[in-house]
Amino acid sequence: MFRERIRNRELLERIVSADDAARLIKDRMTIGMSGFTRAGEAKAVPMALAKRAKDEPLQITLMTGASLGNNLDGALVEAHVLARRLPFQSDPVLRNAINAGEVMFIDQHLSETVELLRSRQIAPVDIAVIEATAITEEGGIIPTTSVGNSASFAILAEKVIVEINQSQPQELEGLHDIYIPTRRPSREAIPVMAPDSRIGVPFIPILPEKIAAVVVTHNSDSSSTIQPPDAETQAIAGHLAEFLMHEVKLGRLSRSLLPLQAGIGTIANAVLHGFIDTPFHDLTMYSEVLQDSTFDLIDAGKLIFASGSSMTLSADKYRKVIPDIVAYKSRLILRPQEISNHPEVIRRLGIIGINTALEFDIYGNVNSTHVGGTHMMNGIGGSGDFARNAYMSIFVTKSTAKNGAISRVVPMVSHVDHTEHDVDILVTEIGLADLRGLAPRERATTIIANCVHPTYREALSDYYRRALARGGQTPHLLEEALKWHSSLRETGRMLA
Amino acid sequence: MFRERIRNRELLERIVSADDAARLIKDRMTIGMSGFTRAGEAKAVPMALAKRAKDEPLQITLMTGASLGNNLDGALVEAHVLARRLPFQSDPVLRNAINAGEVMFIDQHLSETVELLRSRQIAPVDIAVIEATAITEEGGIIPTTSVGNSASFAILAEKVIVEINQSQPQELEGLHDIYIPTRRPSREAIPVMAPDSRIGVPFIPILPEKIAAVVVTHNSDSSSTIQPPDAETQAIAGHLAEFLMHEVKLGRLSRSLLPLQAGIGTIANAVLHGFIDTPFHDLTMYSEVLQDSTFDLIDAGKLIFASGSSMTLSADKYRKVIPDIVAYKSRLILRPQEISNHPEVIRRLGIIGINTALEFDIYGNVNSTHVGGTHMMNGIGGSGDFARNAYMSIFVTKSTAKNGAISRVVPMVSHVDHTEHDVDILVTEIGLADLRGLAPRERATTIIANCVHPTYREALSDYYRRALARGGQTPHLLEEALKWHSSLRETGRMLA
Repeated sequence: MFRERIRNRELLERIVSADDAARLIKDRMTIGMSGFTRAGEAKAVPMALAKRAKDEPLQITLMTGASLGNNLDGALVEAHVLARRLPFQSDPVLRNAINAGEVMFIDQHLSETVELLRSRQIAPVDIAVIEATAITEEGGIIPTTSVGNSASFAILAEKVIVEINQSQPQELEGLHDIYIPTRRPSREAIPVMAPDSRIGVPFIPILPEKIAAVVVTHNSDSSSTIQPPDAETQAIAGHLAEFLMHEVKLGRLSRSLLPLQAGIGTIANAVLHGFIDTPFHDLTMYSEVLQDSTFDLIDAGKLIFASGSSMTLSADKYRKVIPDIVAYKSRLILRPQEISNHPEVIRRLGIIGINTALEFDIYGNVNSTHVGGTHMMNGIGGSGDFARNAYMSIFVTKSTAKNGAISRVVPMVSHVDHTEHDVDILVTEIGLADLRGLAPRERATTIIANCVHPTYREALSDYYRRALARGGQTPHLLEEALKWHSSLRETGRMLA
Repeated sequence: MFRERIRNRELLERIVSADDAARLIKDRMTIGMSGFTRAGEAKAVPMALAKRAKDEPLQITLMTGASLGNNLDGALVEAHVLARRLPFQSDPVLRNAINAGEVMFIDQHLSETVELLRSRQIAPVDIAVIEATAITEEGGIIPTTSVGNSASFAILAEKVIVEINQSQPQELEGLHDIYIPTRRPSREAIPVMAPDSRIGVPFIPILPEKIAAVVVTHNSDSSSTIQPPDAETQAIAGHLAEFLMHEVKLGRLSRSLLPLQAGIGTIANAVLHGFIDTPFHDLTMYSEVLQDSTFDLIDAGKLIFASGSSMTLSADKYRKVIPDIVAYKSRLILRPQEISNHPEVIRRLGIIGINTALEFDIYGNVNSTHVGGTHMMNGIGGSGDFARNAYMSIFVTKSTAKNGAISRVVPMVSHVDHTEHDVDILVTEIGLADLRGLAPRERATTIIANCVHPTYREALSDYYRRALARGGQTPHLLEEALKWHSSLRETGRMLA
């Protein structure tokens, strides 16, 4: 069964157990693993590593595309295998270890990790561990449900371990488009001119000699933890659709808009899902994660093409889409995250970027990562790649959290991931603030009027009024600016 | 004399006084003027506007490339002409008006203004006022010492006023390379593949019918206010050169490095000047402003090519370079700032970006714009365009200011323009912090050990130690994080 997936016959001899493959990994090595937002991660070798670390000291730097599924990060933390981790994660056990200072977490723009590796500005990858649906005759690796950083990891590593996952249909072949930018100083343009541009090859091109071990696996991806749309996410989707329809009316956009990007998570998924009930048509996506909503939009005849770096689906959607992948294949491409998130392509295509804020302030600075300004949630992910270079950069969030104890709109964000220069539109269930062409003082009045929950509106207005008395381009009362966060830490509520 | 500069004969009939030309500008219009960092700004029409505003109410939105020379912004503010101003300024009178809330200042990444205009996301330009050295037979405008946003302003405006500046040598013709990105959704790659790529035409291509008035002027650019290198800027340059030599030794860079960008101002100029005394050779620049140091490096045989959007020179350098421009022309290109600062090109070429910080914090977040977190200095300029997409993003500053009353390294910056994700290297006269591949806790110890003035080192260490006790990816004491700034405001010193 798995033999037909390993088309290079010599590699059949390199089939080993996960335990044996994991023994190639030594203490203090840097390991590059496949996996992007719980899709297509190597599954058996990291578990074998965690097991082995019970008997011998073993600490590695682990790089991936983005977050891993199957509780792998948690298992590796519990076995004390992770010394360093980059560029993204979303595991509760790992998150605790990061915030305790036990694992050094380097939170990077997702397009930049392999650029740093390629130019040897960070430690090189010793071994790459890549999940594949098959290996070609020439040793080319055909990824599964994500591409992430797998291609560059495999190309740059000394040795490669391939996990052939039999649970993934072989029909995934042809879905991927692997392109690696040429070297500087003679680098050429990235030739993606539209979301459906195919510019590379459908496998990761490496020589079979580099493949040191092949492991056969059977476990499927974890399903995504997306919540269904609720009244608030529907209101956010409604405000955004209304705004975009107005842009169409003004002649700034056509009804096909421009290629859409949506961040990972419930709110962005719900917003995208909301496009089903709009007059927009022939939509395209140029995004990183393709979630349930992407396939809902395709099924509804709204979306004609989606480019991403992974497919991260709920259990129901996974059961429907993956076996039927042939039906979707002509409308999909999975790319390396360096290309799905490349500033050059994002600026050229003119992406409408929709990402989730943890909180934003009255001037439109956005915190995407740090709870209370100090504790890491997941990481910046691709939000910076998109927000920094998009045609239009939109951030969405509910206006409050924890039953109203937290306002998502604050006097000053406790941590900045996206500066006001990179934030065009803010949307909560309360309403939408169009900040384009506005000075900070105008941004403040627009945000307070449109996005803030009524419970917090007067307090924010009061802060702003008093700050205004001190003057400045961006008026603040520095001694009070972070008081809402201090209060939250001490009392569990932002306001007494 | 000026007749030979106006090669389209019909346009000779449109020569008018500056007062008459200024009368085309009506109350509430949006005006796009040439000018980038005190170079090549329209000079006569704005002065005529300021004069006219004494007699009648006249308020405009003024867009330029960047800052204007000849105190024009100040004169316009004093005449109450400026309602809105973008995307950059550096005038003390205007700065006060901005901070008093009298002028709405929209502080933008310099590559993005015309992108927003082209897609009609901000109010359109009614009239463009462009300084030129000549007009071609076909109506093409040949700029002077800057390109800035002039090309797109002229192309997108309803009407164009051209100021023919007789003080500028006609030999400037051929220096400029005007390229406008094609429209979305079918935009092509920006074909700059090296700093010396010529991709456009040497004039701004518009139809002569659009030129509503021609004004003949004689005044030269203001000279730059660059200070000569001092012991501290030389120390900064020394640390950086030593670091880059080490990168060469490690084989990461060649002795020609990669194309250099340096921000406007004394420190960046001094750092670049410092490259004269290094073993680097065949250097290139892909920058926005070409300052004195660019020409010093060319004269010293170190720099073989420089691409920018303006030449902003000291009085001495101006007198030497401008009359002798023919000797430099084969080594120079002036481009629209959208191209000089384009993320696509910056990422492709792999720029080493060197920009000045107003302050940075122990985690490497940078404030480039806001004094005390509230009051605008100049604006973000192109620093974001470069830092966000560079091969290596370097920020430089002296470790203290105001005779030591201010530390440029603080617990938390009072305003964020560049997040830790976009800051690789920090340099003060004390030393250099290489932050690549480090987690925030490692960044903090590296920055405190290497960049902080001894007077402040123990206080920062103490803050960090106490913050650490609270945990987190980015430990902070929120109730204290901005106390140094509050103290500065109240007592004139950051520490008692």
